[in-house]
Amino acid sequence: MITTPIQLRFNDIDIQGHMYNGQYQHIFDLGKNEYFEHVLGIEQMDGRQTVVTANSTTNFYVPVGMKDKIVIRTSIEKVGNKSFTVFQQMVDQVTGTVKADSRTVLVGWNAVDKESFAIPAEWREKIEREEAH
Amino acid sequence: MITTPIQLRFNDIDIQGHMYNGQYQHIFDLGKNEYFEHVLGIEQMDGRQTVVTANSTTNFYVPVGMKDKIVIRTSIEKVGNKSFTVFQQMVDQVTGTVKADSRTVLVGWNAVDKESFAIPAEWREKIEREEAH
Amino acid sequence: MITTPIQLRFNDIDIQGHMYNGQYQHIFDLGKNEYFEHVLGIEQMDGRQTVVTANSTTNFYVPVGMKDKIVIRTSIEKVGNKSFTVFQQMVDQVTGTVKADSRTVLVGWNAVDKESFAIPAEWREKIEREEAH
Amino acid sequence: MITTPIQLRFNDIDIQGHMYNGQYQHIFDLGKNEYFEHVLGIEQMDGRQTVVTANSTTNFYVPVGMKDKIVIRTSIEKVGNKSFTVFQQMVDQVTGTVKADSRTVLVGWNAVDKESFAIPAEWREKIEREEAH
Repeated sequence: MITTPIQLRFNDIDIQGHMYNGQYQHIFDLGKNEYFEHVLGIEQMDGRQTVVTANSTTNFYVPVGMKDKIVIRTSIEKVGNKSFTVFQQMVDQVTGTVKADSRTVLVGWNAVDKESFAIPAEWREKIEREEAH
Repeated sequence: MITTPIQLRFNDIDIQGHMYNGQYQHIFDLGKNEYFEHVLGIEQMDGRQTVVTANSTTNFYVPVGMKDKIVIRTSIEKVGNKSFTVFQQMVDQVTGTVKADSRTVLVGWNAVDKESFAIPAEWREKIEREEAH
Repeated sequence: MITTPIQLRFNDIDIQGHMYNGQYQHIFDLGKNEYFEHVLGIEQMDGRQTVVTANSTTNFYVPVGMKDKIVIRTSIEKVGNKSFTVFQQMVDQVTGTVKADSRTVLVGWNAVDKESFAIPAEWREKIEREEAH
Repeated sequence: MITTPIQLRFNDIDIQGHMYNGQYQHIFDLGKNEYFEHVLGIEQMDGRQTVVTANSTTNFYVPVGMKDKIVIRTSIEKVGNKSFTVFQQMVDQVTGTVKADSRTVLVGWNAVDKESFAIPAEWREKIEREEAH
């Protein structure tokens, strides 16, 4: 599991004073990117070994305000043949409250040759090692 | 069903030349807002009879490019006691291809008194009339 | 002069109920892109004959609300050797009020060879023809 | 002067692989907000003593890439009767290169009573103390 502290932006907050629903995946992606970079070594989103999103689900539990200190917790809970599932939580750093969570199915994608690829054994090992903590 | 033509913005498109995943719900919301305003008569998102999002799912089928002409089709497929489910499709206006779809569970919310409310009979009737077309 | 009607998005509006300052150039860019495409024939922002922004100024006169109908008026007011200046107004379609305006200096840019180029005679002619209306 | 490290987001980067022009003021605002909060004690953007933007200028010198580590440097360079001018730089933390800068004229604004107010002596003192460093 990777924990990513989030720097909220003025434009994350809507007219009701809460984080706008549409922004949640922008923020969850900060966690995914840190996981991809630090655990899988994916540096570039336009390279030969990158990922594309097949499906994404978000559950909204407790609104987030501008002054909340939040972190994203990211883990990979399942690895399939050509895809894997990321589970993430948006957590209030002070109270520990889980404000939202998200599941995303990602597919291995070669952005140069425009084709999917089987999840490499090297990724499986790195994910298993990370998630074994 | 309400059909909303979308004006794409430069910032909807990512480094790979496709619509960024995180932007899809920004765009689906244009359809929801048109439905809420034209069918349910919800004008203000900070009023006594508004809605909040409990859950949102997006399926990504075919990438969207900057020059694609897309429309959002929005319908309400299920009305419960305190919530209802919106189903939406992102469709290529020229080819008819469904590029993505989305389901969102919304809860009736009084943003002034900060409490949920049972979906009013008036909303049920308006939704049934709209969806009967 | 090109006039572009704008489809406002929920996330354009901030906690005060007005268009967020940071979003103005996102919206002015809808006008620039229409001008570039329809007048200059620039289709792709990653091609051999595209533009990059050197400088951008925005004046904020009257706040924009979610229900305002706005259009962007775009004209090119000056063409230099390697750059030109775009002048834009954000106008309330109903009242005619100019809510904001913006000046942008753009430089001709070859995104493939990574170098600037002198503004082609063909662009000058197209701009003069457009602005002579 | 206040220095604010920036957490870049995937959506800050455009199809050319550089920070999108329209995003710069979103990012400069992270510096302004830190200044307002830490130096002036402005906590809420919808309160009695807040600010609105009258004018904003951005100069783009060197493109910013996804992997760049950037900071925003924010200072107030001039305080008038009802307004003040913020000067900001976007700086590469590793090389020290100034990638962009920005000047913003802000007006003291009472968002409850909807009227401007003269910059309070208390703000002047706090700004002078900060900028004297």
